[in-house]
Amino acid sequence: MTAQLSRERIMQAAQRLYNRCDQLAEISALDNGVLRAYLTPEHQQANTLVVSWMVSEGMRSWVDQAGNVWGRYASANPHAKRLIIGSHLDTIPNAGKYDGIVGVLAGIELVALLNAKSTALPFHLDIVGFADEEGVRFGKTLLGSAAIAGGWQPEWQTLADADGITMAQAFSTFGLVAEDVHRATLNPEALLGYWELHIEQGPVLEEQGLAVGIVTGIAGARRFNITVTGHAGHAGTVPMTLRQDATVGAAEMVQTIEQLAIDHGLVATVGQFAVKPGGVNVIAGQAVFSLDIRSDDDALRDRVVEKITSAIQAIAARRKLTVSLEQTHAANAVLCDHAFRQLFSLACQQMTASSFSLVSGAGHDAMAVASICPVAMLFMRCKKGISHHPDESITVEDTAVALTVLEQALLSLSNQYKT
Amino acid sequence: MTAQLSRERIMQAAQRLYNRCDQLAEISALDNGVLRAYLTPEHQQANTLVVSWMVSEGMRSWVDQAGNVWGRYASANPHAKRLIIGSHLDTIPNAGKYDGIVGVLAGIELVALLNAKSTALPFHLDIVGFADEEGVRFGKTLLGSAAIAGGWQPEWQTLADADGITMAQAFSTFGLVAEDVHRATLNPEALLGYWELHIEQGPVLEEQGLAVGIVTGIAGARRFNITVTGHAGHAGTVPMTLRQDATVGAAEMVQTIEQLAIDHGLVATVGQFAVKPGGVNVIAGQAVFSLDIRSDDDALRDRVVEKITSAIQAIAARRKLTVSLEQTHAANAVLCDHAFRQLFSLACQQMTASSFSLVSGAGHDAMAVASICPVAMLFMRCKKGISHHPDESITVEDTAVALTVLEQALLSLSNQYKT
Repeated sequence: MTAQLSRERIMQAAQRLYNRCDQLAEISALDNGVLRAYLTPEHQQANTLVVSWMVSEGMRSWVDQAGNVWGRYASANPHAKRLIIGSHLDTIPNAGKYDGIVGVLAGIELVALLNAKSTALPFHLDIVGFADEEGVRFGKTLLGSAAIAGGWQPEWQTLADADGITMAQAFSTFGLVAEDVHRATLNPEALLGYWELHIEQGPVLEEQGLAVGIVTGIAGARRFNITVTGHAGHAGTVPMTLRQDATVGAAEMVQTIEQLAIDHGLVATVGQFAVKPGGVNVIAGQAVFSLDIRSDDDALRDRVVEKITSAIQAIAARRKLTVSLEQTHAANAVLCDHAFRQLFSLACQQMTASSFSLVSGAGHDAMAVASICPVAMLFMRCKKGISHHPDESITVEDTAVALTVLEQALLSLSNQYKT
Repeated sequence: MTAQLSRERIMQAAQRLYNRCDQLAEISALDNGVLRAYLTPEHQQANTLVVSWMVSEGMRSWVDQAGNVWGRYASANPHAKRLIIGSHLDTIPNAGKYDGIVGVLAGIELVALLNAKSTALPFHLDIVGFADEEGVRFGKTLLGSAAIAGGWQPEWQTLADADGITMAQAFSTFGLVAEDVHRATLNPEALLGYWELHIEQGPVLEEQGLAVGIVTGIAGARRFNITVTGHAGHAGTVPMTLRQDATVGAAEMVQTIEQLAIDHGLVATVGQFAVKPGGVNVIAGQAVFSLDIRSDDDALRDRVVEKITSAIQAIAARRKLTVSLEQTHAANAVLCDHAFRQLFSLACQQMTASSFSLVSGAGHDAMAVASICPVAMLFMRCKKGISHHPDESITVEDTAVALTVLEQALLSLSNQYKT
């Protein structure tokens, strides 16, 4: 096969993937905008459509006990290990067309490319469309990937949606049995790994002028509520030097948090900030703000949390305020597999003579799957870093680059593979 | 009369004033806590009690068309001018016992001291208890003093309280006629001035270790809503350097506002601060905060507003944010009369060999009265600067100092006075 023919095939695959994203977006619970939640009729319809695409590529296709849809490009060896490629098919309300979806459809297009050359693999290539990553309906994220990774908690079936329908009832309506979900758990010994293509959901690749980037790891996050207590007072009668103003104290802390994050190369965000009593003519006696801090280096993140804690305590002391931190969330980073990253990196270098790596600040199915096998992620550029919004946008050209990298990495893995 | 006897009389007067504050506090619309609002049964009861105290000092007493209570220590000359001493008798909900009240009761005690020595004055001394300064019931402040100063607006009678009762109806229930309020307006040519004793409502006198301070003026205030617009984004996926974070931008502005206020010797307060969308894992795309800036020097205040405007625009530009200011309130400063201030100052120096002056950051009845005659204010120390709270606290000793200063100033004015 000539390079020219190969390139044409890839562009056709990318175009089909792009068009199929439009097709999937038509399956929605909303008249205007996209919404596909777990165990809904839209989930059922999306699975059916994806199954049809898988079957038309000659794959055996099935839906597991958690509602995840699967397709297999089988190895000749029935006892071969499994490489899984995929992402999720569910969406938030008023979503874009690409978040999650591209990772599933890329798997199908890779199979199409393998079919075109009748490539035999020494391992099963399993494409998965996870049923719930966003957690919109029952308030728990990563349900689909948790199920295959053995992380499913039986008590989740009692969670109810906004209409009071429990997950157990929803399973039943969907044609599944909540008690059977544990049977979706995969045997780690049968797994070679998990690869996931996803839109970046951030502006870094666009800023760098790159179509794709290799994910080093999924950042761990810690979250805090920080309460600053001073002394409320009259805006006219208390001189500046005698104030214990919680607003300005908290504002100084926010500045310091930003600077420490910049200095240490991680991200820290104050997304919530409220003051009390909140009168225009009253010095605030209390300010409460949130802190979300993330890094793919847990030790670094924890050191910066310590530095932030010291810094804000010093600010509080100097301003005669008190400050307290309450941790509301903590999750460690998940590192992507080094060997997989090297495969991706070599494939990138073959195309562009360079490769670029970045951290994933957002959570992904790969986080859950990492508990049962090595994982790898490839990010593709999305316009202005926008995601979770109808303006989410990718290009066919970038999709072709992503497919080329994944195909090349897959063939390299196949060549390296010792049965 | 010996100095010793004079001092005992003052202490007795101060003690009686203090006790009467307790008595007045029992007149309340709340079972626990003090509340006396305009044109209520509590207003009526407080007026009745104050009239009884005035009458027992031999004063002629009356209630004017706005519901203000008056008592006169009359000059022998029926055509003499009037010096008014007073403050207000209404309270906020869950108030302290002294805000306003002490200024009315001090006037009555001064009359008692004059009576004790049968002092004749070349002017009428009129003691006033204003009916509404706090504006709790109808949302308009300074109603009582506005009425005597000709500032009453006829349309106010259509304002309704929380129960839908209009001010006109409330006047009628109280036994007054809303249409007649304009008749409470005083003739400026008959007025010598207005003196008001008030608790400081701030911590300056306590910090200085002083019982009283002379007010130079009542600060003018300007208020703004400031809106900072950036770009919302994912807390994990947008690197620090690519953010347009409205929270940190606004936080930096708050810091700068504080510093400019300190540098220029006025007060500026950010009492409200809110961010949107307000998710713990979302970079804020918008922050809105209030600014209240006050000074007794209008030109200085306006210069600092300009400096603040430039500074926050520069911060916004550097951070790729936009910022807009909307002015929501503007009132110029009211200066206290220089000659009155000198009388107060000499009286202070006689007692303690020094006198101390300060700005009033809060509004007072004197602001309204200043439109018809020269005004003066004396502040007395209150514990920890607390006001508008049940913990409001003064001492009998400080009250005695305040009465001494006012009595001395009154006698000096009498001696200076050319009929």
